[in-house]
Amino acid sequence: MAVSAFDHPYLSGLLGDDEIASMLGIEAEIGAMLAFETALARAEAKHRVVPAEAATAIGAKLANFKPDIGRLRDGTARDGVVVPELVRQLRLAVGEPYAKHLHFGATSQDVIDTAKMLLLAPVLANFDLRLSQTDALFADLDSRFGGNPLTGRTRMQAAIPITASDRIESWLTPLLHHRTRLETLKPSLLVIQFGGAAGTLEQLGGKAKLVRRTLAEELGLGDAQQWHSQRDRIADLASWLSLVTGSLGKFGQDIALMAEVGDEISLRGGGGSSTMPHKQNPVAAEILVTLARFNAVQLSGMHQALVHEQERSGSAWTLEWLILPQMILATAAALRIAGELLGNIQSLGDSA
Amino acid sequence: MAVSAFDHPYLSGLLGDDEIASMLGIEAEIGAMLAFETALARAEAKHRVVPAEAATAIGAKLANFKPDIGRLRDGTARDGVVVPELVRQLRLAVGEPYAKHLHFGATSQDVIDTAKMLLLAPVLANFDLRLSQTDALFADLDSRFGGNPLTGRTRMQAAIPITASDRIESWLTPLLHHRTRLETLKPSLLVIQFGGAAGTLEQLGGKAKLVRRTLAEELGLGDAQQWHSQRDRIADLASWLSLVTGSLGKFGQDIALMAEVGDEISLRGGGGSSTMPHKQNPVAAEILVTLARFNAVQLSGMHQALVHEQERSGSAWTLEWLILPQMILATAAALRIAGELLGNIQSLGDSA
Amino acid sequence: MAVSAFDHPYLSGLLGDDEIASMLGIEAEIGAMLAFETALARAEAKHRVVPAEAATAIGAKLANFKPDIGRLRDGTARDGVVVPELVRQLRLAVGEPYAKHLHFGATSQDVIDTAKMLLLAPVLANFDLRLSQTDALFADLDSRFGGNPLTGRTRMQAAIPITASDRIESWLTPLLHHRTRLETLKPSLLVIQFGGAAGTLEQLGGKAKLVRRTLAEELGLGDAQQWHSQRDRIADLASWLSLVTGSLGKFGQDIALMAEVGDEISLRGGGGSSTMPHKQNPVAAEILVTLARFNAVQLSGMHQALVHEQERSGSAWTLEWLILPQMILATAAALRIAGELLGNIQSLGDSA
Amino acid sequence: MAVSAFDHPYLSGLLGDDEIASMLGIEAEIGAMLAFETALARAEAKHRVVPAEAATAIGAKLANFKPDIGRLRDGTARDGVVVPELVRQLRLAVGEPYAKHLHFGATSQDVIDTAKMLLLAPVLANFDLRLSQTDALFADLDSRFGGNPLTGRTRMQAAIPITASDRIESWLTPLLHHRTRLETLKPSLLVIQFGGAAGTLEQLGGKAKLVRRTLAEELGLGDAQQWHSQRDRIADLASWLSLVTGSLGKFGQDIALMAEVGDEISLRGGGGSSTMPHKQNPVAAEILVTLARFNAVQLSGMHQALVHEQERSGSAWTLEWLILPQMILATAAALRIAGELLGNIQSLGDSA
Repeated sequence: MAVSAFDHPYLSGLLGDDEIASMLGIEAEIGAMLAFETALARAEAKHRVVPAEAATAIGAKLANFKPDIGRLRDGTARDGVVVPELVRQLRLAVGEPYAKHLHFGATSQDVIDTAKMLLLAPVLANFDLRLSQTDALFADLDSRFGGNPLTGRTRMQAAIPITASDRIESWLTPLLHHRTRLETLKPSLLVIQFGGAAGTLEQLGGKAKLVRRTLAEELGLGDAQQWHSQRDRIADLASWLSLVTGSLGKFGQDIALMAEVGDEISLRGGGGSSTMPHKQNPVAAEILVTLARFNAVQLSGMHQALVHEQERSGSAWTLEWLILPQMILATAAALRIAGELLGNIQSLGDSA
Repeated sequence: MAVSAFDHPYLSGLLGDDEIASMLGIEAEIGAMLAFETALARAEAKHRVVPAEAATAIGAKLANFKPDIGRLRDGTARDGVVVPELVRQLRLAVGEPYAKHLHFGATSQDVIDTAKMLLLAPVLANFDLRLSQTDALFADLDSRFGGNPLTGRTRMQAAIPITASDRIESWLTPLLHHRTRLETLKPSLLVIQFGGAAGTLEQLGGKAKLVRRTLAEELGLGDAQQWHSQRDRIADLASWLSLVTGSLGKFGQDIALMAEVGDEISLRGGGGSSTMPHKQNPVAAEILVTLARFNAVQLSGMHQALVHEQERSGSAWTLEWLILPQMILATAAALRIAGELLGNIQSLGDSA
Repeated sequence: MAVSAFDHPYLSGLLGDDEIASMLGIEAEIGAMLAFETALARAEAKHRVVPAEAATAIGAKLANFKPDIGRLRDGTARDGVVVPELVRQLRLAVGEPYAKHLHFGATSQDVIDTAKMLLLAPVLANFDLRLSQTDALFADLDSRFGGNPLTGRTRMQAAIPITASDRIESWLTPLLHHRTRLETLKPSLLVIQFGGAAGTLEQLGGKAKLVRRTLAEELGLGDAQQWHSQRDRIADLASWLSLVTGSLGKFGQDIALMAEVGDEISLRGGGGSSTMPHKQNPVAAEILVTLARFNAVQLSGMHQALVHEQERSGSAWTLEWLILPQMILATAAALRIAGELLGNIQSLGDSA
Repeated sequence: MAVSAFDHPYLSGLLGDDEIASMLGIEAEIGAMLAFETALARAEAKHRVVPAEAATAIGAKLANFKPDIGRLRDGTARDGVVVPELVRQLRLAVGEPYAKHLHFGATSQDVIDTAKMLLLAPVLANFDLRLSQTDALFADLDSRFGGNPLTGRTRMQAAIPITASDRIESWLTPLLHHRTRLETLKPSLLVIQFGGAAGTLEQLGGKAKLVRRTLAEELGLGDAQQWHSQRDRIADLASWLSLVTGSLGKFGQDIALMAEVGDEISLRGGGGSSTMPHKQNPVAAEILVTLARFNAVQLSGMHQALVHEQERSGSAWTLEWLILPQMILATAAALRIAGELLGNIQSLGDSA
């Protein structure tokens, strides 16, 4: 069953995004966690925390590892996080005498949070690409229709005339800002999580920072002090996602309003109705509003999760798991739909 | 892939609920929509809006109908709602000469909202049962430990002594209130949705109310004037769901706090850690807090959706689809987990 | 200074409500707290917990009591709640030998929460009256314009014709539901709060329930077991407030949309612009949307406050103080504005 | 009356902030709006849009201007915004023949949004200062107690030992990040708002950009294309405010938990109780949690306001007015309270 419209058997046609969904799927998730463990062994071998042969064996075994998902599920139910059971399965697969060298000095949160970053990196690169494509589509719209007069509307009433260009500028400019914000945000976001049981990497002694730096390099992430209970990076990302959907929501709202008034826009496509087959629904425009409001709601939860007590809060951390993937999918869907909507604008403004 | 932790391959072990998930699955959804169409044809035949043979044929065909999910998905992407494509497939299955009598006078929203009510009825009955079971577990806890002294705690500090019974009362009483609230809420919630294209049942003329009443009876729902743009019933249900998880969240928070202080509770089970196998995690207690905060967040979206413009708002309506199933699953999980947690309390209070 | 637009020197003209503001002002608040203490002394005298002369003296002194607000402010900063300092001032005013009989067996939360209920009772009666007045205005609107054709609009597009009556019904019916909900909610909401330090009324021994019942009667509130950490009544009220503003927000959104399209409504009044004096702004309609979205946001906080740990949570309780008065003012403003807007509708629908 | 706890007669002692309140008070607000009009006249005189004498006269009259607040209130109620009435009063004060040169080419939103930026600049400078002071206090705490052992706690259970330094690092580091974020955010936030009636500065013709640049310089703000309907700057600021209170909330939650467990912290001060005078309440710690959750709630509304339709949305814009000042006050209070709490920590960790 699918609880979420994003991956519902048919609602996903409207709200889903296959590209991002595949980047965040179970194979990608597990793959990222295995990448962490493999890189950790390599980093620890490099600094002689574990034998080199252990790292080799671990790399080899994990490359072919197929998890028992049912047992992962039971483990998660019992432990509140999948990693203890995953590590148990991995150690079984690695076997003696190297099993004990797998996951040495790490804790569950290191695996989960780092894996999240590994998955986020290509997702954010994809979003940046989509934003640039959307920018280009707006620029194209501007070149085609920008000079057309448009009724400026303030407080739901006709105001003085403007041009389509003026309106398009209000849709495009925030997206440019969001790309700049993303550039600023990424280096501090896409970092390693590595702190051990209670954040002190106590098992690695004086080699802790060396191992962490190598681990980060191995994984292509920035090096950083552990941030187990410091969720500001994550909350900041959530804010960025909501800024994107919010700006696209304003675009959608404007298109929907123009579609209702009717005389300054012409949309190709749209949707039918079960009883009124002549109707054209500005569905894409409406959904952009939905996704904006959806992410604005979810953002609250990601910021509640900043109250993350002590060295690790199961309650605050789990709240992130419930919410962040959805905000990512909502943003993906909004970018996809905005692109489709832009492609469906046949005319904008008064061209008579 | 699963975007939602509720039906994620392994997170669902912690946060999912198989029982409720099956009641809301795609088969149940489609079944409920087919039930609507079948009952509609029957009701219309009864009042001679369609021929009796049409109703018979429709019932027979729909009983064996297997949807083309891929096309439903495409239709949803195009129309913003699945029903136009579903109706197209159903009419194809019914064939001539009865095809045109299927879905006569109805609109997509009638199908979707009524189906939602058909699915909600057993879910709410299940929640009421679980609440009564939880009440019984609290009563049992009280009988076992109620007389034990407990440190009363106000503003995170030890206060005067109370008894375990006093604390248990604060967990139990709100749940009793919620059952009463549910009894009040259900008759006005579990009603038919039937209004036609723009809420006026214009195709049924003077027979509109008769057909609607019969349709409601056929489906075991209350009769009501259409509520296409009046979402207060739905928002009220969402508030109820959040009240339940909120109260269970207070219970979870109290258990977690007692587990941290350590001397007035003993929990069986709990969870392990990847690095600290000796640790007992009060995971269930923490997750109850997560689910409470999750639903408190989502509730905002369901109330934003009250701003449902004109005769039908695609943007507000779709926001409900994104949120309500999750609130239901969160409530199911909270009830399940509370029951498990109660079963794992080995002792409560100071029994020395 | 005014942080809140509701009582801002000029924004209150748009968003405030003088009637409700006066019902919730500092005099009313302190008066309600004094009423609690006076009634408590009387109830305790009746059951011989304190001497009758103590109750008489307390009543007399409190009738003329003027608080030192500056010291109340300092006390609140130190204690997190005003009552300890208020009681200190009251005991000083009462003097020996009766001072110790004031506030006997009660705790700060008993005073604060009960006072809240005392203030809420007339506010809710006022809201019910306003709802009935709004209902009458909608009925009048219907009698004047109900028969006029109106363009039904679904998904931001013209659909089949409806009548103004159909649209008005969608505005009016939820308000009728809210009045019914209020009737159900009030008896369980407007109850005494009386539990003593940690909810056990330990200082009153076997007379606790008798005193509580008499106290409730004295104050015209329902009797109830203490609910210090059980905030479901309050969260339920918050949901109701948001249902009201949400329904009025849908009304406002519809008027704003009709004002933008322009041909099916004529509004008297409205607002001017600093640069475009010819413009008519459907300001009231827009503000109804604002207040709906505002309360939908705030509701989340009131439900987060359900996670109220142990016998008293300073953090959860204070969150209620930050939010609930605002939701009440938002609802008052929405009811006021809806009434004004209704009075300004000069015509509705197509009457040509 | 005070609806908001932030400026309530006694609750403000706990939740208010006199310093920031005075920076945002009515005198500051009106002063900022007058500064806009004065600077606009000067900029327009410089570029010969208005006569130089007009600018001089305007500057002189506005320097002594005392508004009729009652009429501002009525105007706001009528127009939805204070500026039309304010401009009317200002033009009356300026008198002939210069009145018409006041507010030339500007719109209400230019005045309101620019004034907001003028008020925000010193507030943000103050917050940066307070953050640096808080950082210093954490550094001092670390120097005094950092070496002490502390029980690491994960998932509400004792874990391996850490040092107080480790815990302090988790409180301090995010605040350093927030200062960096503020540095990045300020240049794009603190900009002029100047677009005229519908954003096109149509009355200024070819001199529009020159006047705008000079106006920005006059006011010490950055120059920027108008952003009437582009609210990402404002929503981004709101996110930053919530990041700050969220991080301080984690600090508060940790202190409260340590206070409950009792053996690793000693707090001076705190609060008393009306019935249990021996109790020490970690009030400040609890309130930090309240303010974190409060701002996490409010943030949702500021992001809903991104859906700002067309050239100006009364509904979305007004939602900002209802929320942003509160988020600012919450952040001020949190910074103040964190500083006080830090000053009250007498010992941290196990120093035996």
